[in-house]
Amino acid sequence: MAVYTDIDDATLSAFLDEYDLGPPLAFKGIAEGVQNSNFLLETRKGRYILTVFEKRTRRDDLPFFMGMMAHLAAKDFPAPLPVPAKDGNPLRTIHGKSAVICTFLQGMSPRRPSHEQCRELGQALGRFHVALADFRMRRPNDLSLPAWPKLWEGRASAADALSPGLASQIDGDMEFLKSNWPKALPGGAIHADMFPDNTFFLDGKLSGVIDFYFACSDFLAYDIAVCLNAWCFERRGEFNLTKGRALISGYETVRRLEPRERSALPILCRGAAMRFFLTRLVDLAATPKDALVKPHNPLDYAERLGFHRQAKSPEDYGA
Amino acid sequence: MAVYTDIDDATLSAFLDEYDLGPPLAFKGIAEGVQNSNFLLETRKGRYILTVFEKRTRRDDLPFFMGMMAHLAAKDFPAPLPVPAKDGNPLRTIHGKSAVICTFLQGMSPRRPSHEQCRELGQALGRFHVALADFRMRRPNDLSLPAWPKLWEGRASAADALSPGLASQIDGDMEFLKSNWPKALPGGAIHADMFPDNTFFLDGKLSGVIDFYFACSDFLAYDIAVCLNAWCFERRGEFNLTKGRALISGYETVRRLEPRERSALPILCRGAAMRFFLTRLVDLAATPKDALVKPHNPLDYAERLGFHRQAKSPEDYGA
Repeated sequence: MAVYTDIDDATLSAFLDEYDLGPPLAFKGIAEGVQNSNFLLETRKGRYILTVFEKRTRRDDLPFFMGMMAHLAAKDFPAPLPVPAKDGNPLRTIHGKSAVICTFLQGMSPRRPSHEQCRELGQALGRFHVALADFRMRRPNDLSLPAWPKLWEGRASAADALSPGLASQIDGDMEFLKSNWPKALPGGAIHADMFPDNTFFLDGKLSGVIDFYFACSDFLAYDIAVCLNAWCFERRGEFNLTKGRALISGYETVRRLEPRERSALPILCRGAAMRFFLTRLVDLAATPKDALVKPHNPLDYAERLGFHRQAKSPEDYGA
Repeated sequence: MAVYTDIDDATLSAFLDEYDLGPPLAFKGIAEGVQNSNFLLETRKGRYILTVFEKRTRRDDLPFFMGMMAHLAAKDFPAPLPVPAKDGNPLRTIHGKSAVICTFLQGMSPRRPSHEQCRELGQALGRFHVALADFRMRRPNDLSLPAWPKLWEGRASAADALSPGLASQIDGDMEFLKSNWPKALPGGAIHADMFPDNTFFLDGKLSGVIDFYFACSDFLAYDIAVCLNAWCFERRGEFNLTKGRALISGYETVRRLEPRERSALPILCRGAAMRFFLTRLVDLAATPKDALVKPHNPLDYAERLGFHRQAKSPEDYGA
């Protein structure tokens, strides 16, 4: 839940004067997204989401995110389209913070994705990568391998407090990842956070992907690894092989994996689990105990790391 | 900001099966209301607000609120209409809590109401009272005179901590209110919480009134007193006489005040300020310091009490 910035009617009216959208007919803060403040906005022209970027999103990164969304929308991928203001620029300022108005996408986020939804998601991820093949902007993945030791530093006792013995396992994972991380794989623009709550479905079909604010340039197969972690594990920590197969075969209906990408899946999955374990551990420490925003449990990703440690081959993931 | 109850897609689908609204096209938690959880819901039939009642709203009171809203909507007053489920009852249960789906109202809540908006609000309040003149359900006002000593008990030091000397002034107000509170005035169904953020405006006209969960049976003029407190004071605590005149004359274009109602306005305003001072004081003590819900400042209403203490006559309020 996130509405960190308060926008009154006078501020909104002045802000909308910079656009050709007409006056507001409705405006409500919504509980979507954890990093930024989001508002549902309606005018006679249609419905939109106004996002105000809070401190965790860097201003310099915004043109990359805007460019990616506009590129995808131009290719008929169901991504929100940043709406240009009268001067042609979709990036504005409100209360001194960067802000953007994007088109509204219909649909519902799945809570417990079915294997059909995993197939659909895999296919959408393939279309996403293909649509961005000619996207020219670059942004390094600042939450990949080089960032992990810094995130981990000083957190061993926090990890052991969650689960005794976890810290030494994480140390081992860190060593393994550092020694075995792939050097060269097909790369490009990735979403890097395509979790179920960042997708919408309507009538069984994927109708939207949102929240591009971790998007970056990295190995395409790393995006698959993020999704295998986020979509294919069950509540008690088991990997659902049927869902993994559905996700990967869905992807391959659009873009074939190269043999080296396929072989790299186990290590990429382990790395992706490490990334979310670490950021959740950091967020847990940073969140006051009685805050209304509930931090995600890092242990979910510690469990996934456990699976990845014993996984031997791409077949263990359904590839 | 308030989304206390988490509703996943499977729960929502099962819940909507009880209605003739079709499947959900969009569903988002919204930051409206502090007491209950609210969600924007869209289906092919239209847009709605799903409210889940949290513990502060008593289940036994819900039929009164539902009846009032349905009565108002039937008289073309712009109130949300509770949508009946297939069995004809708009009151349902979700996750063991009472819940209702109401129609969506367009418009924007004014932050700093203009005197035109005060006139419009006064007129709407008059229409509200007239529309409910034949509403037969009753609910006592459980936040009126008899409730205040209980709310105040044990809070003198909290009041003095906010402003030294405030506690003895409140004691004096309590005595005065007890001795002078009117015994008999025209009564009926009142909203009792028609603050600017519970109203919507479109093109300068009032387009909606929401949040009926303090509505009750009381003196009609007490509703005016609540509005004079909520709409006609400026940021630094001054009463804006132009706004007060606009509100009262707007009301009287629909329903004339009787002389005894007019004379009672100063004491009713003082009582209404006491009610909101006390509940804000209670809420302040109950809210954890780092919670995301910011409690309202009781001092705003201590300032208003200061004005009411020195006000001599209805003319001081614009009547």
